[in-house]
Amino acid sequence: MILALAGGVGGAKLAHGLARVLDPSDLIVAVNTADDFRHLGLHISPDLDSVMYKLAGLNDTERGWGQRDESWQFMETLTRLGGEDWFNLGDRDLAIHTVRTQRLQSGESLTEATAGLYRSLGIDHVIAPMSDDPVSTVIETDDGLLPFQHWFVRLRCEPPVRGVQFEGAVSARPSPPIAAALARDDLEAIVLCPSNPFVSIDPIAAVPAIGKALAERKVPMVAVSPIIGGAAVKGPAADMMAQRGLPVSPVGIARYYGERIDGLVIDDVDSSLLADVEREGVKAFVSATLMKTDEDEARLAEETLAFARTLSR
Amino acid sequence: MILALAGGVGGAKLAHGLARVLDPSDLIVAVNTADDFRHLGLHISPDLDSVMYKLAGLNDTERGWGQRDESWQFMETLTRLGGEDWFNLGDRDLAIHTVRTQRLQSGESLTEATAGLYRSLGIDHVIAPMSDDPVSTVIETDDGLLPFQHWFVRLRCEPPVRGVQFEGAVSARPSPPIAAALARDDLEAIVLCPSNPFVSIDPIAAVPAIGKALAERKVPMVAVSPIIGGAAVKGPAADMMAQRGLPVSPVGIARYYGERIDGLVIDDVDSSLLADVEREGVKAFVSATLMKTDEDEARLAEETLAFARTLSR
Repeated sequence: MILALAGGVGGAKLAHGLARVLDPSDLIVAVNTADDFRHLGLHISPDLDSVMYKLAGLNDTERGWGQRDESWQFMETLTRLGGEDWFNLGDRDLAIHTVRTQRLQSGESLTEATAGLYRSLGIDHVIAPMSDDPVSTVIETDDGLLPFQHWFVRLRCEPPVRGVQFEGAVSARPSPPIAAALARDDLEAIVLCPSNPFVSIDPIAAVPAIGKALAERKVPMVAVSPIIGGAAVKGPAADMMAQRGLPVSPVGIARYYGERIDGLVIDDVDSSLLADVEREGVKAFVSATLMKTDEDEARLAEETLAFARTLSR
Repeated sequence: MILALAGGVGGAKLAHGLARVLDPSDLIVAVNTADDFRHLGLHISPDLDSVMYKLAGLNDTERGWGQRDESWQFMETLTRLGGEDWFNLGDRDLAIHTVRTQRLQSGESLTEATAGLYRSLGIDHVIAPMSDDPVSTVIETDDGLLPFQHWFVRLRCEPPVRGVQFEGAVSARPSPPIAAALARDDLEAIVLCPSNPFVSIDPIAAVPAIGKALAERKVPMVAVSPIIGGAAVKGPAADMMAQRGLPVSPVGIARYYGERIDGLVIDDVDSSLLADVEREGVKAFVSATLMKTDEDEARLAEETLAFARTLSR
């Protein structure tokens, strides 16, 4: 049984690969929910949606986020009405947020609401929020604290990041599927998907019982580098590494995760850095990590799992 | 100054005609809000929207309700997710409901939220909810009480109507613009638009201070018959008249409104009924009342106002 930790789009791709090579009973995907926020009365869970859309085959590959065949009539009208239009909500997307919000208001947990949604979308694998308790990423900037989506979307990641806080994390409990996965005897390995370490993976580990279980794990934990050839495939990871004084390379990822991981999958273009990565105390494995097709995703999933099996704790 | 009472689509047409022939300072449209309901977390005001869409030129003329150039991607996805999909919500429509709900949640009254919306849509005339207090039409059927939209939309008006209740009406106050209009010295006439008497006009009059002011009015009140040639142009008015034992004709309308009105505009096709209408104690005026074009609406508005000026109290 494999536990995968995932954030947004990059995480969704490897999660999809894992779902192609593992039976539903052999995989649980723990998804970052610290990006979740309330907007226009809706509970929006961007990372859960990215993973769900990808696993359901509904994701838009051109735009890189949201649903394909999406339309924007709601947004057009919202703008005309002078509404809060800085966060794009597609017409199809809105139905997901509406049903999730309704389910939560009817008393379901986020785990239950998520399960209801992914089952409706024909997904058999388990996708679980990291926690049913609210955790909110807050970005420390020179101008003060910013809620994550305001920094990420409204301000386009422009204010330099001085630090990251996870509000509510200290009292958050793992969601039941994640708690169960971490306790299972047949857990073989933990995979950190190629998601942003600071705002996608760290908030999951900031849930105390998850962080503790990861630190005390008896199975190998491998990450796939979100940095390829000195840049993030998507999102602000590279800038955030530079702002922390980390090399923008798999070496920086290895240094940042340090002994929190046992192995790191790095891209072919970074193969010359293998020894430098291992000098950080992390075993490295070189592969083609840029996932463009379903086959890329499945192959990288297979290779990552095979690599994990070579590692010990 | 003219006060017009309006319900849904028929009311919206004459309100539009009145807005074309009267300056914004000379017209206030009081709209039924007893059809309002909460659905999927949204505050939906079908009649306010019908009037707004019509006055903004956004109404769909083919479908007869909602916005033109509407799309239904939200509904398609909602159905796929097993959501509550019995009430059609267009993608553009959703933005209206969302902004209204946000405005109400931020503490605005329905009057204020409505004004914000119609101003955003470029409407200069005053469209006011009958009340800022919640009033809910409930339909009495053989199977018990049904909230209006469940009877009207979900059950397609099929359960015979044994009676109509307006929950909350007894403690509802007129909205400030309506209270002000009723008190104005320069109020010349009150126009009942060709809306359903039982579920569009009656709930407005069920607000005690409105009902009292209408009964004690010093100016003529004229209605335009919603029944033409033995049928309602739209909606369940004809069936509801038959179920009450009223003739399904302008005579039935005159009998039902009785001394609550001073005059009734009836259609050319019903001209032979003029004497029968007047036998009910209501002055009648014959005109072409089926409104197909903007010009029809403006002409009928002019004629209705001219007719009202011939009447005295």
